[in-house]
Amino acid sequence: MGTVTGPPTARYGYQRDGAAIYRESFATIRHESRLAHLPADAEKVAVRMIHACGQPDLAADLVVHPRLVSEARAALRTGAPILTDAHMVASGVTRARLPHGNEVVCLLRDERVPELAREWGTTRSAAAVSLWADRLDGAVVAVGNAPTALFHLLELLADGAARPAAIVGVPVGFVGAAESKEALAAFAAEHGIDVPFLTVRGRRGGSALAASALNALAREQE
Amino acid sequence: MGTVTGPPTARYGYQRDGAAIYRESFATIRHESRLAHLPADAEKVAVRMIHACGQPDLAADLVVHPRLVSEARAALRTGAPILTDAHMVASGVTRARLPHGNEVVCLLRDERVPELAREWGTTRSAAAVSLWADRLDGAVVAVGNAPTALFHLLELLADGAARPAAIVGVPVGFVGAAESKEALAAFAAEHGIDVPFLTVRGRRGGSALAASALNALAREQE
Repeated sequence: MGTVTGPPTARYGYQRDGAAIYRESFATIRHESRLAHLPADAEKVAVRMIHACGQPDLAADLVVHPRLVSEARAALRTGAPILTDAHMVASGVTRARLPHGNEVVCLLRDERVPELAREWGTTRSAAAVSLWADRLDGAVVAVGNAPTALFHLLELLADGAARPAAIVGVPVGFVGAAESKEALAAFAAEHGIDVPFLTVRGRRGGSALAASALNALAREQE
Repeated sequence: MGTVTGPPTARYGYQRDGAAIYRESFATIRHESRLAHLPADAEKVAVRMIHACGQPDLAADLVVHPRLVSEARAALRTGAPILTDAHMVASGVTRARLPHGNEVVCLLRDERVPELAREWGTTRSAAAVSLWADRLDGAVVAVGNAPTALFHLLELLADGAARPAAIVGVPVGFVGAAESKEALAAFAAEHGIDVPFLTVRGRRGGSALAASALNALAREQE
């Protein structure tokens, strides 16, 4: 690449200080968002998720289990891996925020996945979740893309799979997303298995929301 | 990892066929979204962006230059690189959809970036854009995270930098995002340089929207 000799002529008046951008962003979010229905220790998680999507009204759709933040944070502090359904989520996790150099695992491109998906008549995202089996115990799980991955995870848990420490379940979209997240929110009541979770009711979700939640859970400091 | 012996017990009734999920999703989006104000060849781009965020009303904020789709697609077909401000965007580009094994470039972790950002008093995201200089000519640019990166790009172009074939400018957030996208939409009128662009007015944006736009531009087939 050629030599860069200097910055371009400043033609627009905009905030160029990264720390100030964060500070002003979070202040605006706190001014505009109603977060009182959330557990007190989930406030910063909500703020960071709203930051990731630009929508203060996301707060109204957020459901956070009372022990989600404490359990996820404790798990990460002791080295739990993060398991996720999408490479974009893995890519969005700020490694410097992880308290224990935690592994971030996405098995969507594992060579066994296409055959399992075909054999089982399901998506590759769902089949890849079965490959988490021996890392699931005490892990922090984040589903940020595929409703089928979240449904598949809940079915594994109902069958007696090892329990993760926490589930960030925020798949996005028009087919199964809202339903899979309702199933997550109802899972303890329906199956007697109480895994701390975070979700966003409705169609909204996605890898940016999943990654921002993980980044907020990784450490308390904003 | 241990052996996976079979799928979990099917306890939820959900669509497990990946192709059917796409088909039903796109049909729902087309049923619920008002896309008539967009160039005809941008319809599939809008559908895929709505798919990525779960919000049909995104359409109302979409602004697409009449030559955006044709120019971006032609550039990619002849091997133009994709330049982006965020690793999440790069990670979200489906390589199998790229027509020419196109390079996907994010220079945010280039070793020169921290020093340039300090020296210039700007963000690392913005400084990294200056390192695109000798690949900018005819490239497809996607800003999916930082408003400062989009402002910086426009300042470079106004200073006479080589012109990209197309700009997907969809930074997200509360400080500068809306303003940077208004500056993109007004750039031809204000600076006499007409680069085809796509943007989302307001605070919404982000890496998932940028990646979905790129995936739609990469080839016409859904």
